Parts: sequence; structure tokens; C-alpha cells
Amino acid sequence: MVGISVMPHAGDMSTAVTRALRVAGVPLVPLGPETDGIVWLGFHDPVGLRDVLEQAPGARWVQLPSAGVDDYARAGVLRGRDVIWTSAKGAYSRPVAEHALALILAMLRHLPERARAGSWGEQKGTSLHGQNVVIVGAGGVTRELLRLLEPFGANSVIVRRRPDPLPGATRTVTQEHLRDELGTADIVVLAAALTPDTRFLIGQREIATMRPDAILVNVARGALVDTKALVDGLADGRIGGAALDVTHPEPLPDGHPLWSQPRALITPHSADTTGMIEPLLRERVVQNALCFVVGDPLEGIVDPELGY
Amino acid sequence: MVGISVMPHAGDMSTAVTRALRVAGVPLVPLGPETDGIVWLGFHDPVGLRDVLEQAPGARWVQLPSAGVDDYARAGVLRGRDVIWTSAKGAYSRPVAEHALALILAMLRHLPERARAGSWGEQKGTSLHGQNVVIVGAGGVTRELLRLLEPFGANSVIVRRRPDPLPGATRTVTQEHLRDELGTADIVVLAAALTPDTRFLIGQREIATMRPDAILVNVARGALVDTKALVDGLADGRIGGAALDVTHPEPLPDGHPLWSQPRALITPHSADTTGMIEPLLRERVVQNALCFVVGDPLEGIVDPELGY
Repeated sequence: MVGISVMPHAGDMSTAVTRALRVAGVPLVPLGPETDGIVWLGFHDPVGLRDVLEQAPGARWVQLPSAGVDDYARAGVLRGRDVIWTSAKGAYSRPVAEHALALILAMLRHLPERARAGSWGEQKGTSLHGQNVVIVGAGGVTRELLRLLEPFGANSVIVRRRPDPLPGATRTVTQEHLRDELGTADIVVLAAALTPDTRFLIGQREIATMRPDAILVNVARGALVDTKALVDGLADGRIGGAALDVTHPEPLPDGHPLWSQPRALITPHSADTTGMIEPLLRERVVQNALCFVVGDPLEGIVDPELGY
Repeated sequence: MVGISVMPHAGDMSTAVTRALRVAGVPLVPLGPETDGIVWLGFHDPVGLRDVLEQAPGARWVQLPSAGVDDYARAGVLRGRDVIWTSAKGAYSRPVAEHALALILAMLRHLPERARAGSWGEQKGTSLHGQNVVIVGAGGVTRELLRLLEPFGANSVIVRRRPDPLPGATRTVTQEHLRDELGTADIVVLAAALTPDTRFLIGQREIATMRPDAILVNVARGALVDTKALVDGLADGRIGGAALDVTHPEPLPDGHPLWSQPRALITPHSADTTGMIEPLLRERVVQNALCFVVGDPLEGIVDPELGY
């Protein structure tokens, strides 16, 4: 008989997930020698997870709560264990891609400027119809964003590690061609995992390659962008605007130049709020727990070497 | 031989339209006794059009440049003439519906608040997925907005003059049921023509019926809303927010309470900028002129009695 432990015990998310697992008939056990699988709900807390793993030497599966697991990879928790890791990757694609579209349209329609305005202004704006959108990353968020972009007839170029084409995209290229594509983009969306390969992917040279009216949208991880280079690029008008749901550092500290940059819009990592993800995480956890119990394949398996 | 006159002569739009008509082989004549059809490019200038009509007593067709023709109806220009009126209705639906979606997503994701913020804040926001959207009006903007809402699986209720169902909408009701529907709406979008029947359609009683977290979006005409009632409703928290591309009065004067209302977002009638509509108007004018010349049915015919 296989036993699953939900950790930590406390909190609304833990209560909701535990209840859902119980309703689904998943055998739950207290953390300890009987634990075969761990549902870990400590968001961005690799240290806490390490403690938990020490108390469950028999665990063969760990479900992580977020889509990106870069903090666990960086802390060295993922490697060197005989454990199957699953993340929530793909589970939050809907709200995150929706947020990306909200940011794109807001920037094209100059909504940040209008929100700050105290008087009528000139008519300006750009339609998304027929725009060139470069999306970095080919995971769930990108697939969902392509679905949302479809009614606008946007041209989409996907930049990804492997050259496999993505359904719904106009073209797919590998990461070494990023800079070639940036020059033609009206909109650049970052939706990639943060790994050693993608860290500071958008730096001074990439921003110099972008068109002066192009918009950068980041809904993935702050450290995909060299913030200093972005601040300089915005200040010098070398890039049209930036809408960031994630920043580096995060949270963005008070007094940071991005707060007063008129071409920037910052949302506080709110693409997928707790309220939005709660039902989605619950569904993913229950599905994976049921599969683990009977030995079926799991959803969202993480490659510890790649870090996503 | 039928002759078409483009008025006024001056301006970029006039130059572009005249060139397109010439390329299409439409016979153009100076305004005068030879004029059978008038392409009128004076936006919101019924007085100017009246002068032009006096100089072209033989005109049997007038193409108006905007989608809504309420200012011409109110000025009494449309009635009592043996003239076929066509407007640009339907021609600008794409950019206007896109703007409506931009405003909806911006309000659900609290983007105005974030644009005004100078520090990191709490995660908050609502997804459009599964929301109840009430759309007033059943013209081109509504049809296009339904297409854009489709990937979000939103429930859509159309409120219109006639009870004919609209493809893609969850339900269609007539205008006298407006208040019944308002109470269940997460989002109310105004996309109706301004007529004596729809003037101040959203007043104190309608706002009182709406949910305190509901969002009002107006991309049609400012006078569909009683601005005073809206200002009071926002100040008292009886409505969640308002995103207005059109206002009454318009332009909204400096110092108006809506400018400082944190739940309001105002764009300066920029859903369809001149840059966006230029190719769309050109296409509509050429198509109608070619049809007029050979006696085929015209697009966007206006009922002078209904005023749209």
C-alpha cells in the first residue's frame, strides 16, 4: 500500500489539497518512514523541502507546487536523489497566458500612460492584428498564448531549445537564432524556464537588436532579463516598452528606476494569483497522486539536469 | 454615367480615399450638379455636410465616415431627403472590439492601479475564464468581441432591440430585460448605437443593480451612460470599476472627478485611431462606390428613423 504525505500541513492550500486527495481516495500518511510520495506545497522553499525529504527516506515521488522549479534546481535539491520530480508545469498556463495577453494589449493601447493621465490626450495605439510576436519558450504558457493570439492573426515565432515546430506557431527556431528574430518583432514574450542557459537571455545586445518601438513582456522569471540593460534601453528609447510580471530582483525594491519609467508596467507576480491556481494545483495533485498510486505515468515530470 | 464627389478635398484621409477610388476606376466629379454620390469624410461635422448637400441637389447616396451616426441624426440631416445613407458600421469592429478586450483584461488584472503604483503590491486579479459578460448592442463590435471572448469560455448575454439570437452568444435578450441581466454580470460592455432609446441607458438604477465588483466598459458612445450616476456609483463602491473609451461630455474636461477616480480608466476615444481606420474606411468606401455605380446593394445602410 502506497502512502502520500502533504507538507506543510498548515494553510488554506494544504487544507484544500488534503481534502481533495481524501475525496479522491488517495491513501494519506503522516510524513515519515511510510511516506512513498510527497505533495510539497511550500512555494519557493527548497530549504523546507530538504528537511522534509530527510524525514521521508522512502519517498520516490515529489510533487512541487510551482510551474518553474528554478529555485529548487539552484538550491541543488533536485539532483542526486532516486526520486521522480513533478512540477505544476502546464497547470497554470491559462491564467499566465491570459496575463501575457492583457499586458500585450495594455502596452499596444498605451493603457499605462492613460491610467496615469489627468486629462484627455491624443488618439494613439496599435492593433495586435497582424503583429509579429516572438515567444521565447515552448511550454504550456506559449501553447495557450498561441491559442489566445489566434483570433488576431498575429505572426508568431517560437524560440526554443529544440527545433521541433509548435502547432499554431508561424515558425519555430532554436535559441541560437534569438537575436536574428528579435529585430523583426513588434512584441517579445518571455515564457521560458529559468536555467543556466536562459539566465539574462535578454541583455544589452539583445535590446540593441530590438526595434525602438518593440514591446518586451515577461511572464516567466525575472532573471531572464538583465534588468540594468533593460532600464538603460528604456531610458535611451532603444526599446518601446516593457511589461513585467516578474522582475530581478523580486520583489522590485522601492525607488527602483523601473517604477518611474513611463514605458514600463510592473505587476507583482500576479499572472497566476493563489486564487487562480488553487483549483488548478488541486486538480494536478489529485491526478498525479492517483497515477502514482497505480503506477501510471505522471504529468509535469521535471528533468533534474535541465532544471524544468 | 454616375459621378462621385469626395468631400472635403483636403487632408490625408481625403487624399488616400480619392486615390483608392481612382485606382478602382470609380468616376469622380467635382461637387456640383453632376454629383450622384457623396463620400463624406468630415468626421462628426453634420453642419459641413448640410452645406455640401445643398451644392449637390442630385445626390442619391451619401457615405458617412464613422460607424455611429448619432450626431448626424441629432442634427436632423438624415431625415426628409431622398438619399441612401451608408455609414462605416461594421468596418471598425476589429480595432474597437480589441480595445474592449484590452480594457476588460486591464480592469480584471488591476493594471490601472499597477500603472500608478510606485512599489510592489499584493497579488490580485481575476481571470476572464468563465466570467459572465453582458454586451449591450448586437452590431459588428459585439460580433467581433464574441469571437475574441470565445477562447476564454466566457458566458455572454447580448442585450439588443430585437430578440433574434446572435451566433456565438450564450443568450440574447431584449432591451427591457437589461436590468435583470445586470445583476449577474461580472463585466458589462456597451457596444450599442446612441439613439433616443439608448441615451443614458446606464443610470443610477442600473448601477444600483450591478454587482459591487462588476466592471463597466464603454466603447460606443459616452451618452449611453449617465456620467453623474457613474461617478457616484464608483465613489460609493456600488460598482467595481469603469473603463471608458468614450465619455459624456467628450472630451472629458480637466478636473473632472473621473480623472482622479482610482477605479476608472479613460482612453481618449482611441479604440479606432485614424491610423487603424484609414485602410478600413478606404476599403468600405471603394466597395460601396463600386456597388453604387452598378446599382448593387450597399454595405452599412443607415435607417434614418432608427438613427443607425
